[in-house]
Amino acid sequence: MTVETRKDADDVRGHDPRRLAWAYLSKVVQGPCPPLSRLVEDVGPEEAARAVRERDLSEMLGKRTVARSGVDTAVHDLDLVTGMGGRLVTPDDDEWPRWRLLGFENQSRSRDEGPPLALWVLGSRSVVELTDRAISIVGTRAASGYGEHVTAEISGDLAVDGWTIVSGAAFGIDGAAHRAALGVGGLTVAVLACGVDRAYPAGHARLLRQVAQNGAVISEYAPGATPAKHRFLARNRLVASLSDGVVVVEAGWRSGARNTASWARKLGRPVMAVPGPVTSASSTGCHRMIREGEARLVANAGDVVEEAGPIELREVGDAGVRRDLDALSGDALLVYEAFPAVGSRGVRELSELSGVAVAQVRAVLPLLEMEGFVTSDDTGWSLQR
Amino acid sequence: MTVETRKDADDVRGHDPRRLAWAYLSKVVQGPCPPLSRLVEDVGPEEAARAVRERDLSEMLGKRTVARSGVDTAVHDLDLVTGMGGRLVTPDDDEWPRWRLLGFENQSRSRDEGPPLALWVLGSRSVVELTDRAISIVGTRAASGYGEHVTAEISGDLAVDGWTIVSGAAFGIDGAAHRAALGVGGLTVAVLACGVDRAYPAGHARLLRQVAQNGAVISEYAPGATPAKHRFLARNRLVASLSDGVVVVEAGWRSGARNTASWARKLGRPVMAVPGPVTSASSTGCHRMIREGEARLVANAGDVVEEAGPIELREVGDAGVRRDLDALSGDALLVYEAFPAVGSRGVRELSELSGVAVAQVRAVLPLLEMEGFVTSDDTGWSLQR
Repeated sequence: MTVETRKDADDVRGHDPRRLAWAYLSKVVQGPCPPLSRLVEDVGPEEAARAVRERDLSEMLGKRTVARSGVDTAVHDLDLVTGMGGRLVTPDDDEWPRWRLLGFENQSRSRDEGPPLALWVLGSRSVVELTDRAISIVGTRAASGYGEHVTAEISGDLAVDGWTIVSGAAFGIDGAAHRAALGVGGLTVAVLACGVDRAYPAGHARLLRQVAQNGAVISEYAPGATPAKHRFLARNRLVASLSDGVVVVEAGWRSGARNTASWARKLGRPVMAVPGPVTSASSTGCHRMIREGEARLVANAGDVVEEAGPIELREVGDAGVRRDLDALSGDALLVYEAFPAVGSRGVRELSELSGVAVAQVRAVLPLLEMEGFVTSDDTGWSLQR
Repeated sequence: MTVETRKDADDVRGHDPRRLAWAYLSKVVQGPCPPLSRLVEDVGPEEAARAVRERDLSEMLGKRTVARSGVDTAVHDLDLVTGMGGRLVTPDDDEWPRWRLLGFENQSRSRDEGPPLALWVLGSRSVVELTDRAISIVGTRAASGYGEHVTAEISGDLAVDGWTIVSGAAFGIDGAAHRAALGVGGLTVAVLACGVDRAYPAGHARLLRQVAQNGAVISEYAPGATPAKHRFLARNRLVASLSDGVVVVEAGWRSGARNTASWARKLGRPVMAVPGPVTSASSTGCHRMIREGEARLVANAGDVVEEAGPIELREVGDAGVRRDLDALSGDALLVYEAFPAVGSRGVRELSELSGVAVAQVRAVLPLLEMEGFVTSDDTGWSLQR
């Protein structure tokens, strides 16, 4: 015991004790646990961690935490994830997607229906910002060529339009959704049913690295957690909660995607499904959901945006000052409207996209920049966010 | 004039004067005309024909009939259609599909929304029997291979199951629907927007002959009428009314099939649409209808039957007492099930609708009344509510 205590004391150096408590609790509880979330809310993570360690708990919480309460890998887990360019995000943090997780407050009847205690995240972007305007696109692993094609169209169009694409990194539809977002330089988030230190499925290891670079890989499970059926179901609730709506592209008659969709319904998020040939088994789940009124039919990104919330004209506020798009006219308006929501463009591309001559584009851009509409860096011109 | 009168008198021999009046009126009015239908109901077809001939009419009816009131080709038309193995079916006839056309009673606000005055029919089967259990299958002329395949599947399965397939004999989906019904030895009805003496489209002349042999070719337009846009729209309302529900298999963004579907909605018939690849222009109209809640998604014949019937046993509660339908059997059950949910029926109609002989219906009704299932007043018999 003495050795272990000394070792702990060494490792703890450099770590915030409150964050260590969160990491310990995350590992102990392995997934959603509304009673523990409430305890932490009442007494704070450190006192909650002490109570768990010392088994000073209600019977229900005691049962739920007994198996792992003696295992404290918090330092190791935090170091591991930090080494991968990640971090533990907790309700203490500004980037905690509080708003997205509100729906769980009234859903905590069963053990799997609560909010996550904390989120392990790979990637440098703020979780709350990434998921501010987001669409989840999910579907069967056994996707058809048609399904992958339609996924790529819808996901790519939404990502170009500034929506973050959230999915579960599985083979088939999920992978196609992430890849299409990456392909257009958009943002994408993968939510895993295992620790973020594991690439699952292994065949998507490279894809997951790219997702972390251009968005985030997120899990509520501490490092080392392996994928298991109940974790996939719990993961699906996060996929549903971290977006403005769920699109099912292809799903068989019984499909995990329907589970994600039913989560979205519980959370009040629009559920959408893409139809396909009635001769295709991969579309039977989508047709069933549409037929039963569980999902609204969507055929393209425009339909999705109509369901999940119309994108208003991009009037980006800056320090409370609302820039007046009405003040723009002629070439300036054409050039402004040619900008994608995400990513930068060169002068020549903007000329092609807007139909305004290159010389005019060159003249107009500095004016747009002065007015705060656009900004430039060495990759080109982009919208001011 | 004298010569013509003498000629008429010759031709008239062998024709029922009442039927000649119907034929005359049908030719004069060319399509639905609620005021004329009401006049005929009030004074009978012969007196109505006299009033039209002599221009002894309200202003509205006068305007509607003036163009052709001097043209009486009734004898010629009846002889022509009889020669083709057909006949004129009117509200006088037992085979008049009264029940199917009831929906128009409250729809007569505009000139095109009324019931047909009479129906010209090729084929030997009773119209009321043919349309007793019927599904309309319609869609684009520009059908894809997928669309024709799915039409054939659904139409064939329904026809095997004893449903009559109603459609408009157009190229594409309509033709595929008729052919599939014929292919399985089923019944099918083509409703035309021109006289039944014309094969339209000409390329479907042989198909129309087969339809007449295995069902009926029907038009409310007298022989000689040519297809015209307003007649297609009026025809669509008959396609919708002569069945238990309308299935749109493929339809472009703007499609006549949507017109048929909107008629079905007005008439309280279920509207169904088959989805397809979102990449196919031929399915955009179907997807739009499903998305807008105008049609329910169906993927196969089973889904169609679930929407369009069978009519469930109507267990109507009365003052808290639940009458025991299980106690009914044999003729009593058949007669009871023949009642519409709304409105009254005469003994003869109930006989037709139930397939039970008139004498038996007369014997059974008082028993049903004693048991509290039905009631009677001077309009006929109706369900006890």
